[in-house]
Amino acid sequence: MTVPVATTAAPSRAELAERLDRVRARMRSADVDVYVSFDPVNIYYLTNFANYVHERPFLLVIPLDGLPVMVAPLLETSHVRARAGCDLAYATYAEFPAPAGANWFDVFRTLIPTEARVGVESAMPIGIFERTPGTKVVVDVIEEARLVKTPYEIARNVHACQIVTAGHEKLLQLCRPGVPEAVIYGGVTQFMMAMVFRDIPTANIMVTNAKAAVWPPSISFDPHRIPSLGMPMENGGPHVSIVTAQVDGYGVELERTFFLGYVPEWAAAPFAAMLEARATAYAMARPGAILAEIDRAVRAVIARHGYGDCILHRTGHGFGITGHEGPYVALGDERALQEGMLISIEPGIYVAGRGGFRHSDTVLITADGCVSLTQAPETLEALTIA
Amino acid sequence: MTVPVATTAAPSRAELAERLDRVRARMRSADVDVYVSFDPVNIYYLTNFANYVHERPFLLVIPLDGLPVMVAPLLETSHVRARAGCDLAYATYAEFPAPAGANWFDVFRTLIPTEARVGVESAMPIGIFERTPGTKVVVDVIEEARLVKTPYEIARNVHACQIVTAGHEKLLQLCRPGVPEAVIYGGVTQFMMAMVFRDIPTANIMVTNAKAAVWPPSISFDPHRIPSLGMPMENGGPHVSIVTAQVDGYGVELERTFFLGYVPEWAAAPFAAMLEARATAYAMARPGAILAEIDRAVRAVIARHGYGDCILHRTGHGFGITGHEGPYVALGDERALQEGMLISIEPGIYVAGRGGFRHSDTVLITADGCVSLTQAPETLEALTIA
Repeated sequence: MTVPVATTAAPSRAELAERLDRVRARMRSADVDVYVSFDPVNIYYLTNFANYVHERPFLLVIPLDGLPVMVAPLLETSHVRARAGCDLAYATYAEFPAPAGANWFDVFRTLIPTEARVGVESAMPIGIFERTPGTKVVVDVIEEARLVKTPYEIARNVHACQIVTAGHEKLLQLCRPGVPEAVIYGGVTQFMMAMVFRDIPTANIMVTNAKAAVWPPSISFDPHRIPSLGMPMENGGPHVSIVTAQVDGYGVELERTFFLGYVPEWAAAPFAAMLEARATAYAMARPGAILAEIDRAVRAVIARHGYGDCILHRTGHGFGITGHEGPYVALGDERALQEGMLISIEPGIYVAGRGGFRHSDTVLITADGCVSLTQAPETLEALTIA
Repeated sequence: MTVPVATTAAPSRAELAERLDRVRARMRSADVDVYVSFDPVNIYYLTNFANYVHERPFLLVIPLDGLPVMVAPLLETSHVRARAGCDLAYATYAEFPAPAGANWFDVFRTLIPTEARVGVESAMPIGIFERTPGTKVVVDVIEEARLVKTPYEIARNVHACQIVTAGHEKLLQLCRPGVPEAVIYGGVTQFMMAMVFRDIPTANIMVTNAKAAVWPPSISFDPHRIPSLGMPMENGGPHVSIVTAQVDGYGVELERTFFLGYVPEWAAAPFAAMLEARATAYAMARPGAILAEIDRAVRAVIARHGYGDCILHRTGHGFGITGHEGPYVALGDERALQEGMLISIEPGIYVAGRGGFRHSDTVLITADGCVSLTQAPETLEALTIA
């Protein structure tokens, strides 16, 4: 596989039909007659229609043949018809909550024969599961179908990577000691959103966002402690950047460890260990490689450098519709990489109270290895900003 | 109840303890020994810690006495400790997915005796429900506790209403024929976000957002068809605005039907019908009023004006932590309003292919009636912009 050229076109009917075929093949393997999708990400993957979860459920009921049926509230049916990129049948319910006999479950249950074997997502809420007829099987066939991207999907992610690559460049220009987080968050987010709407004026804002932030050294050891906007950038480092975007429905990320002005003496060694761990993952990432083995090798490199206690997370995760999904480059994921998967490679070292070290890229698995779709400086020299 | 003065202070320990007491009282009524919360909104309500749902679950295990236990990944425990506003016990798991014996469910299941009666949310994913020990009871005790706001919560929502009130004023200044949606969305969103961070420099961005958009007449008949950013505003109307915000964890909204330059002749009658339907709801909204009866009366007013076929949704919904929650001013909600509830009053009339008519406000139920916490022009005259 060569890296596809970026595209911003909406998915064709053929593309959405291919995705449905993939799901149906897995439904047959799982021996289910009907599949019910509640997860808005999965519904978007199959239909190009985006919703967010609220008390009025959207449910896509997928038979092995014939049109999928969208169960949606009256309020939304015109919206679904306007946005869906494929043919659907519709089953409309009045409102939530409705008087007895007119609720979503009254409509929903008529669509599924009681003798059917019905596949459902592990994310399905118990309140919906309990009202789903048939013999239920929890099986994530749509997540499985999403693991290997179509060429079209990759071309969309390539475009999204151009946005975060430009956003990260902007971030490194703005980030100086004393600059508050708000300037970076506001400036880079707006810069990227402007790029998105320049490239895709009709981008669906329900599946579009772009975010950029820097964890200054006072919190970079705690990778999920979202900074507050008044927090100033500091002299030295390590600072850790996060630039993520979901661009009209396709998610990616780019992150770097960097320094402002100088590198504290203690920080060079963990930075070098992180680079070596990262190089180990890149060298192993190819079709057939077992995800758990990559994570194990990465952890061994970090431990050999003496930072085994500074590992807080796995080596990476998948991308696609979202910026955070399967497969997982994690000790517990025994699956093999395949050509056309998209993963992050982002081993991290977190020295408690002192600072964190992590680069992350959006990486495509190719026929014989991998290639990063995001670009930013990588070395300590290039990431020490005067 | 008088309307509390706006506050932006973080919730005190006493406030969070009061919320936990409310939940425990309902746990006792529901005869459960332990409650498990997965919903990030409910976890935020009880702890002031915000997370978003991804494949690594956060689970709050609440016994009848003693500290609630937060089940969280290693990656997040420092983050939770930094943000939680109350004392918690912690149960940490390694990663997702982890090797056998080290996953979230291995830790989680040790926290609950198999003989316990365990309450769970109807939103709990089946994949977590299946791994929850004990005799399970689906009961939404935290949603029930959230229905009536504490004075502190109302004071936070009062502040959030100041933001959307100012945002809506800005929106009406920017909205002119030919102006693209992007200018309104970008301008008003940034204006409101600047206000939020002026007032609350430490606002948690995981539970902070502000959005403003206008549905021009070409789509205002379809209330959930999110406009695209290239869409220009038009001469005439009806345009329908939506200004919403979640301000450091407290959600509200303000919406208006308005016209640019002139009012098409056909539009005056449905506008008047909408105003009358709205006045009906305001007149009925007081403690003891049955929600379904308000919606029934509102629908009758709209039908009497000849627009019965133009109703797409209920009269309103609740506010609190989010901008969209129970109770529901809907035919199917037989509960009574209580002092301290916050609801939207937003009956809508949607003339297919021609335009929509809806005002929405964030309304507090007081001891003997109700009061809107949001302010914007209401009449056809005031909403016809030269």
